[in-house]
Amino acid sequence: MWTPSIRTRKRGRRRFGSLVKRMPEKNIDLHGSAPDKHKSALLLIDVINDLDFPKADQLLKYARPMARNLLRLKRRAQKAGVPVIYVNDNFGRWKSDFRRTVEHCARHGRARDVVKLLRPEESDYFVLKPKHSGFFSTTLETLLRYLETQTLILTGIAGNFCVLFTANDAYMRDFNLFVTSDCTVSNTKKENDSALSRS
Amino acid sequence: MWTPSIRTRKRGRRRFGSLVKRMPEKNIDLHGSAPDKHKSALLLIDVINDLDFPKADQLLKYARPMARNLLRLKRRAQKAGVPVIYVNDNFGRWKSDFRRTVEHCARHGRARDVVKLLRPEESDYFVLKPKHSGFFSTTLETLLRYLETQTLILTGIAGNFCVLFTANDAYMRDFNLFVTSDCTVSNTKKENDSALSRS
Amino acid sequence: MWTPSIRTRKRGRRRFGSLVKRMPEKNIDLHGSAPDKHKSALLLIDVINDLDFPKADQLLKYARPMARNLLRLKRRAQKAGVPVIYVNDNFGRWKSDFRRTVEHCARHGRARDVVKLLRPEESDYFVLKPKHSGFFSTTLETLLRYLETQTLILTGIAGNFCVLFTANDAYMRDFNLFVTSDCTVSNTKKENDSALSRS
Amino acid sequence: MWTPSIRTRKRGRRRFGSLVKRMPEKNIDLHGSAPDKHKSALLLIDVINDLDFPKADQLLKYARPMARNLLRLKRRAQKAGVPVIYVNDNFGRWKSDFRRTVEHCARHGRARDVVKLLRPEESDYFVLKPKHSGFFSTTLETLLRYLETQTLILTGIAGNFCVLFTANDAYMRDFNLFVTSDCTVSNTKKENDSALSRS
Repeated sequence: MWTPSIRTRKRGRRRFGSLVKRMPEKNIDLHGSAPDKHKSALLLIDVINDLDFPKADQLLKYARPMARNLLRLKRRAQKAGVPVIYVNDNFGRWKSDFRRTVEHCARHGRARDVVKLLRPEESDYFVLKPKHSGFFSTTLETLLRYLETQTLILTGIAGNFCVLFTANDAYMRDFNLFVTSDCTVSNTKKENDSALSRS
Repeated sequence: MWTPSIRTRKRGRRRFGSLVKRMPEKNIDLHGSAPDKHKSALLLIDVINDLDFPKADQLLKYARPMARNLLRLKRRAQKAGVPVIYVNDNFGRWKSDFRRTVEHCARHGRARDVVKLLRPEESDYFVLKPKHSGFFSTTLETLLRYLETQTLILTGIAGNFCVLFTANDAYMRDFNLFVTSDCTVSNTKKENDSALSRS
Repeated sequence: MWTPSIRTRKRGRRRFGSLVKRMPEKNIDLHGSAPDKHKSALLLIDVINDLDFPKADQLLKYARPMARNLLRLKRRAQKAGVPVIYVNDNFGRWKSDFRRTVEHCARHGRARDVVKLLRPEESDYFVLKPKHSGFFSTTLETLLRYLETQTLILTGIAGNFCVLFTANDAYMRDFNLFVTSDCTVSNTKKENDSALSRS
Repeated sequence: MWTPSIRTRKRGRRRFGSLVKRMPEKNIDLHGSAPDKHKSALLLIDVINDLDFPKADQLLKYARPMARNLLRLKRRAQKAGVPVIYVNDNFGRWKSDFRRTVEHCARHGRARDVVKLLRPEESDYFVLKPKHSGFFSTTLETLLRYLETQTLILTGIAGNFCVLFTANDAYMRDFNLFVTSDCTVSNTKKENDSALSRS
């Protein structure tokens, strides 16, 4: 077997008189920070949400039962050691942070009860996203590589928008994907079904 | 003048009988969130830091005067309406947030006095980065596009590492760049000068 | 008006005795290469295609009239000075190049006549993509920034897959978008309409 | 062991009555295209070059012996089954392709003899880059993931610029790195040594 890491150096030195520089053996800064390695990860997309947009009433009706289902799924994931990652819009609050967004939505938002049920816990990861896909302009991909995730379980709001955008981006990055129908909501059941059939 | 946005639709309809779909006129989600448009932005890189690594003593010696210079520069930027953006390592704390990191470093870190001087204020933006460059796997580029930034003033720690990596990435994205020598520190003066001459 | 590019240097020198390094005034390597600046760009997605997959018969039926429509649209774009950009799958041919793919598809593919009609010309740009979205792991975004494109006209194959993925990614990057129904095809009319209504 | 891929579906169906959608088992489009899996890859950066810039004389003097060393290294890599990847500037030729750039540089460039020695062969991969780093706005990262590369051997022109930018980006992506001093050149020996000591 050819081990370039050794022979290149050795041969290089012998044959070409070269100085072969070697970078430190990987950057391990983040290894300590992502100890919960597991093949899967559970993503909760935009569940911390004040649903402050037109027609949110419809969505809210579906969101409550979804939150209960999702909490059960989260508990099972935690028991199994599956990392739980909140991937949430920053709602344009570039100067604020996630904890503050959670407090705001838990107190004032129209989806208070959803947010209270799904309030992030100390053991949860979170990633703030500025746009629809959880992969666009975020640390999600780097975090997932450190967690050595191969399979993503996608849940959240809205099935036909942010969940779908994230699913597409995950698909291009070759993750195995599950989208759970009873942990995903869209404005209408029809839109949700259509999105699920697409993703 | 050819206005494709109009004629394509019109002609399309007339000539090809086509239905031309149009997406909503840009996604303006973030416009409200980045009102401080200015051609320049001031970046403070990794100044929230506990300097918990070998040989940090050296760096600390330079960091204190740097912090005082940088605070003056920050005040001038604020007066001039130049957005101030903290671009800071998350130190592998994927489950924590920036405010908490600030508190930790202000209380326990070896660079307490630096952190206290440069503690982020309500009006400051911040971007957490998982690696050396402020552009790698972060929202920085998206934020700068919304701020319509053309020129970056880079400051912080360490001049020959994270500041330099960020400068290289900014350069490839065609930002005008300033790196201020008295607001940047490296382990040694020689390394700092070498990095400045490179960037 | 505050001109940080000047005063920072001046003040910095005067007040802090600092050496302020300045990078060269933007990297203009590519400016010469993208002279066809126009607010719009016409994207032809995966039209160079051998349609070598199951059920392609269906798609082929729609692809021929699409190719004629698209050629007319391309001619109008060229007259108007709108850059024409082929954004095409490399079909896993990492060792080959686009010209060779064109020749292959023009001679042997099932969509020979489509490819012949839409064969790229000297004045056309092209970007090879390894996955579905034209923005994923390609130079497209950099090229569009150099062209100063604000509006994208999306055409090609397949409306409910690569065109849709590209539309989503363009949307997150705040381009204005047009998707022309008679220059886009999917396996079935229903899928195409559904994709158009989504994008 | 918890197998989310199975139980999520099963339990989901049983307990929540959910329809769980599953994406196809990874996108394998590219697997066929990158059969040369090996832990290492040899990168030749900007060796196809007409050295058409001021002071290139200096660099040319070093480039010729480098080309001979590099050819030997390439032959050894080929024998060992190590993928050889040309990562080359497109020199702003967005409308041309790599083969044409090679022909141009082999005939007219000042580094004709370098280019002739290192002319890409059928078995070599190539990636065009628009900027300094081989990772910026290119397919390189995707290709390396498909090749399952863990270690990069960096060679080429110029050691203190494109090779260094690529090394930094590779480092942030956690590749093991080798930079071979006698297969890398910069304008001056001093700059090359400095870059090697940095990377």
